[in-house]
Amino acid sequence: MEKFEYLSIRYDGKGLLEILDQRKLPDVEEWLVSAKPEDMIGYIKQLSVRGAPLIGVAACVALFLYVNNEESARAQCLTEEEVTVVATKLRDARPTAVNLMNNLDEMLQLTVKPTADFSAANLGRIARAIIDREVDMCARISVAGAELLSDGDNVLTHCNTGAIATPGMGTALGIIREAWRQGKKIHVYVDETRPLLQGGRLTTYELAREKIPHTLICDNMAATLMAQGKIQRVLVGADRIACNGDFANKIGTYSVAVLAHYHGVPFHGVAPWSTVDLLCPSGKDIPIEERQASEVQGVSGAFGNVRWAPANTPTFNPAFDVTPVELVTSHILDTGIYTQQQLKDSILTKHK
Amino acid sequence: MEKFEYLSIRYDGKGLLEILDQRKLPDVEEWLVSAKPEDMIGYIKQLSVRGAPLIGVAACVALFLYVNNEESARAQCLTEEEVTVVATKLRDARPTAVNLMNNLDEMLQLTVKPTADFSAANLGRIARAIIDREVDMCARISVAGAELLSDGDNVLTHCNTGAIATPGMGTALGIIREAWRQGKKIHVYVDETRPLLQGGRLTTYELAREKIPHTLICDNMAATLMAQGKIQRVLVGADRIACNGDFANKIGTYSVAVLAHYHGVPFHGVAPWSTVDLLCPSGKDIPIEERQASEVQGVSGAFGNVRWAPANTPTFNPAFDVTPVELVTSHILDTGIYTQQQLKDSILTKHK
Repeated sequence: MEKFEYLSIRYDGKGLLEILDQRKLPDVEEWLVSAKPEDMIGYIKQLSVRGAPLIGVAACVALFLYVNNEESARAQCLTEEEVTVVATKLRDARPTAVNLMNNLDEMLQLTVKPTADFSAANLGRIARAIIDREVDMCARISVAGAELLSDGDNVLTHCNTGAIATPGMGTALGIIREAWRQGKKIHVYVDETRPLLQGGRLTTYELAREKIPHTLICDNMAATLMAQGKIQRVLVGADRIACNGDFANKIGTYSVAVLAHYHGVPFHGVAPWSTVDLLCPSGKDIPIEERQASEVQGVSGAFGNVRWAPANTPTFNPAFDVTPVELVTSHILDTGIYTQQQLKDSILTKHK
Repeated sequence: MEKFEYLSIRYDGKGLLEILDQRKLPDVEEWLVSAKPEDMIGYIKQLSVRGAPLIGVAACVALFLYVNNEESARAQCLTEEEVTVVATKLRDARPTAVNLMNNLDEMLQLTVKPTADFSAANLGRIARAIIDREVDMCARISVAGAELLSDGDNVLTHCNTGAIATPGMGTALGIIREAWRQGKKIHVYVDETRPLLQGGRLTTYELAREKIPHTLICDNMAATLMAQGKIQRVLVGADRIACNGDFANKIGTYSVAVLAHYHGVPFHGVAPWSTVDLLCPSGKDIPIEERQASEVQGVSGAFGNVRWAPANTPTFNPAFDVTPVELVTSHILDTGIYTQQQLKDSILTKHK
């Protein structure tokens, strides 16, 4: 496989695969070497690698590298069984990750079994195709969405939807990046995104790297900015889009959607088309995971570990919330921009 | 002066004045002795004593105590000049605090000059009257507001408006306390209130002390609770109420007001009548102070000190925001409950 370098994963073309340790950002940029699949499994488990698209890609490259090293050492191809054993270990690093599962299935060529080819050369080609697809998908989302942004716009974003979680340029943050590359003079307000602070830690880091003007705010300050007319558009990611256009995303997204609606600010969910769950009729059908109390009682990370609430204070800590489609101006997908009606029509077509 | 004991200030009746060090809450309950005015000045400056009503009261008792000690030692009364020198030092501990200024003026008896009496006995009586007034004001607010709460209600509150910042039972939190004392089975959702976390640190502490059921949330989670029908009423403090009913309060209040409006949840500003600024026509006339970036880039306090955003990340950090009267169901004051029209009528009467 030829060399590649993205914001948080890189390969030198000669056998050195590295990932940027996301636990240490933004203050420390430390690259970790993944010499064997077990290294990558550890990095995924300890959250050094995070973001569904990035995990999916990192596992494929780790699998390729293993096969490549073994093939060179033995001077012969590995069997399907040998490759499957390692792919299964990688998949088990995060059992709920859909991208990880789908990408590894693609590496195992389950749908082309009779003609499957487990040579390092072929697995390298498949991994490269997966990466290219991710990069391309982000690029198409970004180009589609950038058309909505104008010189002078202030864009509010929530959580991290950037290049750190994918080999591409990101989704909502990809649009911001693309508009900036096109020379549009925009400014970004970044919700810190309690409790895990992906906005405060990661989105600020990405924007600073690209020198895109930005301002960090606490989540409860967006309303004041909107009342002052200082936000022209809201762009957020979407983890799962139901067939009626309702969507789940990081906790706090729904709050921003209500505020944007009240103030007449256009609000967009941004994601690949593959995020549309054809088996999910509406937002009511999306289960929301609740996380541990310690996240709300304080903060912890590589930056430190503090608790400010009284010990054992009861908390409510949903990881996601659901934004009903009535509050969505349009969804920006890699296949284009969709109003509620357009999304419904497209889904009906898929269902036929 | 006879002994008294409130949540964060106490006097033993024999010369021992102590304050609860609010910097160390909630984990450590440390009482600090104020033996002389310089001690209290230090406590005010270092924020061990905070909350406008509490500062105002603490300074008066510290002044009384000084006069009492000197009078005993000398076996004669102090002069007006001697008392004024010390009062001025206390006032300068927080030059912008209106309560502090007004209360010390009351101790100096500026309006009754010809018959002023600077004996310890008289200054003790004045200080006691000031405390009683504060306690009584909170009680009247609490009783008025508690009528609005019913068994089974979930109440959302923001910031800290409790007994920790006043010698009384608090304002918005006083209502919650009173309803609970009346036997109403309520439950409180507490906004953590970024960036300074007064909800997460202090409101949780007060509610836990009184065993009132509560749940701490991040500020961006209230919308989800409202959408689920889990919040019946919102009670927040009010730092300054304009003549049209707009009011300024801790940052994040306006956001909650918009969310409550969208979800049809009654929303109330709670404060003493003295918070109404007869010289301020509307919310537009209330200046909003902006605070330092470090508060948004991380958190710091006795619990620890961390920064998670990249160093020097630009921030927006208004200390307060303004909630327009259209979003206010009614204001709950010590003089009763006021709709927008009732408040306007009362203010017109005062202006006459």
